[in-house]
Amino acid sequence: MNITEETIAGWEQNYRRSFINSLAGFRQVALIGTYNKSGMSNLAIFNSLVHLGANPALYGLISRPDTVPRDTYTNIVETGEYSINYVRSIDADRAHQTSARYEHNVSEFDVVGFDEQKIAPYNAPFIADAIVKIAMKFETKIDIKINGTIMIIGSLQYIHIDKKIVREDGMVDLCAADTLISSGLDAYYSSNLIARYGYAKPDTWPIKKK
Amino acid sequence: MNITEETIAGWEQNYRRSFINSLAGFRQVALIGTYNKSGMSNLAIFNSLVHLGANPALYGLISRPDTVPRDTYTNIVETGEYSINYVRSIDADRAHQTSARYEHNVSEFDVVGFDEQKIAPYNAPFIADAIVKIAMKFETKIDIKINGTIMIIGSLQYIHIDKKIVREDGMVDLCAADTLISSGLDAYYSSNLIARYGYAKPDTWPIKKK
Repeated sequence: MNITEETIAGWEQNYRRSFINSLAGFRQVALIGTYNKSGMSNLAIFNSLVHLGANPALYGLISRPDTVPRDTYTNIVETGEYSINYVRSIDADRAHQTSARYEHNVSEFDVVGFDEQKIAPYNAPFIADAIVKIAMKFETKIDIKINGTIMIIGSLQYIHIDKKIVREDGMVDLCAADTLISSGLDAYYSSNLIARYGYAKPDTWPIKKK
Repeated sequence: MNITEETIAGWEQNYRRSFINSLAGFRQVALIGTYNKSGMSNLAIFNSLVHLGANPALYGLISRPDTVPRDTYTNIVETGEYSINYVRSIDADRAHQTSARYEHNVSEFDVVGFDEQKIAPYNAPFIADAIVKIAMKFETKIDIKINGTIMIIGSLQYIHIDKKIVREDGMVDLCAADTLISSGLDAYYSSNLIARYGYAKPDTWPIKKK
């Protein structure tokens, strides 16, 4: 099947959105917790978490003007804080349900049924039984002018994680925790480990770790 | 296990890099094919493919100054084109091996053993038996000043894909093709479908598709 730029431009809008979004591949499901100015909690699903650097530890998130989590963007800019939460594959339905357009006076924590947790001194709500909970500080935003999207950049302030899934060399084994993965707008997955390899060198073939 | 910003800053560099990179979760393995000005091919592994929008269809890639695929960045800017290739989970070792620092007079296609394919009129090399082959046109770059990284933004010009993995609504079923996923610097995975859901609405619970 050969598809050109002209084919893509001619597709019906929902077909195109589903195709181009899912074609971008597998990505981490990140549930972003925020408070608004009145202290009302919000929880929204993102599949655009980007690792930007380890020192300082910075992650990005893409916020598209045409998608639901605009409340998230507003809350992040207004409070300067947010949480990143990863859940298990059995939580796929609840995670997906956070993408529904609920009214502003409703917290997605309540309606989809994730218990909300406060972790002092961070000003963002966390999912109590998340596998990974990260407190983020909003650092800056970048306007991606070519299509009006925004990259939200934050620094990692605090991480809560079960030490059983942190390997000796620092690698976080999210597969062992059965972390939820997504693709496109509505498909959810779990993972199977194929292999870990040593640092690649020109004169040797990858050696499997562990 | 509770980790603060100070804990992270105090970690040994390799441990920190491994932890923060793998903590960012699962992501698509994208093998980026380019030519340099002399027509020499290059193939490099990226795990930072970002969906930016469907109309026009735009994907981003993060290029970090301290990582191997700098040749890729140079080639993209100089030729204005690149390819994105997805491979199967059984190709994990070859995909990982493209991250070795080969000399400039060596093509990663040759040394790791992926057959190189030209697809006219696109000026980038493709992996002949890739599950997904995308020809990209370089559109713009964004300097992420906070840590000196760069986002390379390109538009999708051409896609080659087996129509058997494209669902009726446009969703590309990469799981059915056993597409390779990664996490962190050296861990590779395949996927299991948990569920696809309908568009989420406030008054209904997610309904499984198919």
